Amino acid sequence: MTTPKSRRLERIAPLLTGKVLPTDRTVDALQEVLEPGDRVALEGNNQKQADFLSRSLARVDPGRVHSLHMVMSCLTRPEHLDLFEDGIAERADFAYSGPQSLRVAQMMSEGTLKVGAIHTYLELYARMYLDLFPQVSLVAAEKGDREGNLYTGPNTEDTPVTCETAAFRGGLVVAQVNELVESGELPRVDIPGDWVDVVVPADRPYQLEALFTRDPRKITDVQILMAMLAIRGVYERHEVVSVNHGIGFNTAAVELLLPTYAESLGLKGRICRDFALNPHPTLIPAIESGWVRSIMPFGGEVGMADYCAAHPEIFPVGPDGTMRSNRMAAQTAGLYANDMFIGSTLQIDADGNSSTVTSGRISGFGGAPNLGYSPHGRRHSSPAWLNLAGSEGGRGRKLVVQMVETFGERGLPHFVESLDAVRVGREAGLPVTPVMIYGDDVTHLVTENGVAYLYKCRDLAERRQAVAWAAGATELGRARDRKHDAALHRAGIIASPEDLGVRRTDARRSLLAARSVEDLVEWSGGLYQPPSKFRSW
Amino acid sequence: MTTPKSRRLERIAPLLTGKVLPTDRTVDALQEVLEPGDRVALEGNNQKQADFLSRSLARVDPGRVHSLHMVMSCLTRPEHLDLFEDGIAERADFAYSGPQSLRVAQMMSEGTLKVGAIHTYLELYARMYLDLFPQVSLVAAEKGDREGNLYTGPNTEDTPVTCETAAFRGGLVVAQVNELVESGELPRVDIPGDWVDVVVPADRPYQLEALFTRDPRKITDVQILMAMLAIRGVYERHEVVSVNHGIGFNTAAVELLLPTYAESLGLKGRICRDFALNPHPTLIPAIESGWVRSIMPFGGEVGMADYCAAHPEIFPVGPDGTMRSNRMAAQTAGLYANDMFIGSTLQIDADGNSSTVTSGRISGFGGAPNLGYSPHGRRHSSPAWLNLAGSEGGRGRKLVVQMVETFGERGLPHFVESLDAVRVGREAGLPVTPVMIYGDDVTHLVTENGVAYLYKCRDLAERRQAVAWAAGATELGRARDRKHDAALHRAGIIASPEDLGVRRTDARRSLLAARSVEDLVEWSGGLYQPPSKFRSW
Repeated sequence: MTTPKSRRLERIAPLLTGKVLPTDRTVDALQEVLEPGDRVALEGNNQKQADFLSRSLARVDPGRVHSLHMVMSCLTRPEHLDLFEDGIAERADFAYSGPQSLRVAQMMSEGTLKVGAIHTYLELYARMYLDLFPQVSLVAAEKGDREGNLYTGPNTEDTPVTCETAAFRGGLVVAQVNELVESGELPRVDIPGDWVDVVVPADRPYQLEALFTRDPRKITDVQILMAMLAIRGVYERHEVVSVNHGIGFNTAAVELLLPTYAESLGLKGRICRDFALNPHPTLIPAIESGWVRSIMPFGGEVGMADYCAAHPEIFPVGPDGTMRSNRMAAQTAGLYANDMFIGSTLQIDADGNSSTVTSGRISGFGGAPNLGYSPHGRRHSSPAWLNLAGSEGGRGRKLVVQMVETFGERGLPHFVESLDAVRVGREAGLPVTPVMIYGDDVTHLVTENGVAYLYKCRDLAERRQAVAWAAGATELGRARDRKHDAALHRAGIIASPEDLGVRRTDARRSLLAARSVEDLVEWSGGLYQPPSKFRSW
Repeated sequence: MTTPKSRRLERIAPLLTGKVLPTDRTVDALQEVLEPGDRVALEGNNQKQADFLSRSLARVDPGRVHSLHMVMSCLTRPEHLDLFEDGIAERADFAYSGPQSLRVAQMMSEGTLKVGAIHTYLELYARMYLDLFPQVSLVAAEKGDREGNLYTGPNTEDTPVTCETAAFRGGLVVAQVNELVESGELPRVDIPGDWVDVVVPADRPYQLEALFTRDPRKITDVQILMAMLAIRGVYERHEVVSVNHGIGFNTAAVELLLPTYAESLGLKGRICRDFALNPHPTLIPAIESGWVRSIMPFGGEVGMADYCAAHPEIFPVGPDGTMRSNRMAAQTAGLYANDMFIGSTLQIDADGNSSTVTSGRISGFGGAPNLGYSPHGRRHSSPAWLNLAGSEGGRGRKLVVQMVETFGERGLPHFVESLDAVRVGREAGLPVTPVMIYGDDVTHLVTENGVAYLYKCRDLAERRQAVAWAAGATELGRARDRKHDAALHRAGIIASPEDLGVRRTDARRSLLAARSVEDLVEWSGGLYQPPSKFRSW
């Protein structure tokens, strides 16, 4: 039977040997396979990138291949945006644009880049299964064989969803592989061969960012203070066992205080046991000290492969002995199985809304919107969840914690009256202001001033008072009517370091279980192999 | 290296030829593989059941295998509960117990069955990835080969998650197959062989329930009236394009009115285009009339395999030409990609909370809690979603619609002052009342009296007035203070059939696009093959 897919495959048949495409014919093959207006999924998130395929796609003739509708987790590489400038692509549905956020904002306002929507990861996957399935998927794997079977290694990430949503919707799957092997020689099969149509050896291994590596050397005393406040005022108080930690130095500090400060408080086994989390190197001391029971990773982390493989009791490791991550599964775990999301942001407004979209930049939020709200569909209980229960039916609530210093780089306040996102969203013509986490979803704010228990606020006015208190010496904080502070304090809505039994002078780097990347390597027994930019010894 | 898994595999090695276990050694093998206290995932949902393995498990010696912790979507077969009575299992985490709900409630109160929690499907999968991964998974597939590769056919459902969460956590996967085939002879690979340890030909094909088949003959005039009200008052008014329909005759009526009543209103292409849905036979006329663009199915449906295979432009169909469902993906689509959930319930209380847990029965809610709330993590817009936007930041809201006649079988009211679930939950020692969908998540109520737009209510008092109006002639409805009705009407919170331009006398069975299962078969061009219990010609 002739199908749209079989016609595409016919056109590239002369270029293939079985399913194998020679590296140097990739641009030709993409030109033959793609049709104007196609919906194309291009694998690439904040870690792993199918960059050989994206670089090849950027080289096709826009006279032949144009007006593509890109569906991709992340618009993060320069050539991703070249696609739009050159007219090869026209429209994008995505979730994150971090390093390209300035150019994305510019191209959106110029109309060069038409945006369907900026999703959270899990939402984008949901739509790929329902109404955004691709005609062509371009993915990346560590190894592939001649039958199309793929081995992803620890960076499985988005590959399964990107393949499945094409393979089962009449779409075509093209996989770049770091290495082509003979049949039967893959360590394991992550994607069955009959889901994959074309395997092409890449010109070089796919790009991989060490996005979750934080050098303990850069953790400041203020971050350590905030971590101590979080441990006492949030983790301990609510018995938080199951956690997602955002990216950043604040939560890295928490991780490095577990085997020291938290252990001295007798909290081992009582907090921080199960994580939806990338393999953060800063978790190694806690793992080695017996704090951690289970980690479900979104992706892998550069240099952590051997360490993870050596800990199959904690990480998901296959029969082959290497880790398998799964971004869709980990996002689901973070949504429904974790009791707490704790992360950072760039701006918080007077209502408690937060956003990383700042002046002229449209970054998207990746996983945060999905992780940072309490799902009303949750039906299992835990002490932490029940601890935040209101009156109605006794149902509990997930903890959603924003942890942020009042001032950031260059003395810019993290607390502002109104988010830059309001103006940026308006200028870019977005239908809704690009808020990362809504104020009414945030349950706790942690700053160097202490903890604000926003979930206890009776109304928006009280929440605004608590946010302003946490905002400290910023303009927002200073403008507050201080007469509310005492009432908030009596109601247990705000707590200072002293209230929480934390001495500011105790917040010192000597509390960190590891004070350098070298220390982390030592904790790991030499299994952690940090990328060169993190090596200073 | 010796691992817990390798020790288990060693014990059954004498029973296996490669990975193949003879049917008649299954009980022996389970006795050797399982250890007391193991966490065991047993595949089985409201459709497909690994019933050969569950029947075999029920026959092991409780002296050797006991105190198992079962993790399973559904506790629905008699032997599932025998496991607990016989001491083979002790504890369960599950999502649904429909036909066994009475016995579940009894065994819970006696303490024979200890319940971790009653989840919604997606939540249970989330926990299987994080903190409830199984030591042993028992799954079912249509075909398997000697290398362990599995082909699931259209009923893929929970198999991928049940395999992955064991295979990548040092667990063991045992698959019952309807048919054992030679290597290379599977139509396609749904589960790679290296994820599977044991393949056993079942004594008979796995049990499969035709759960989503509704005989149009049984659709009543009142259900047709309600469907007309829903189409005009909800679908049309909010331009609902992307939908999840619950199980039941009410939404079956909607499906059968699309090519007739809704078409006469000029709604084709404007509503009901994309569905997260099982392959409902009652959708065939709408599909054949060009209403439907995409369906993402939770599972398959008995008799629908050929019809789905013939429509790869609508259903996810693999390169092999058969459908692949995926319950985890479809639940995610229903959560994040759909604009509306519309379903039914057994009881609604004065606040609008609903539950299918009634006197003495603990049924669980399957997917409803996940599908029936508006996820705050959603960041894409649609006309329907924006249509329900409040003031704050313009963010929209998913429609969550409960559609229910005021009185049910045997004249019992569906509207009650207080849910039976409150007492049942208390008696069973559940930490939280087993509510299916919370009143503050419900946006619309549809009864034969009209539509109540609960999302417009300013406070709980007003919501209670609107619920009581919808409750009509039930005690709850009659006890209301009717002086509020006029104000609710003026505020557009309630709408009668007349308000919506629906004439009660027009609600007749002649409006249905198909009035019998035979009609559905005809619409399908003979591709739909209903099971014999639905054949009456």
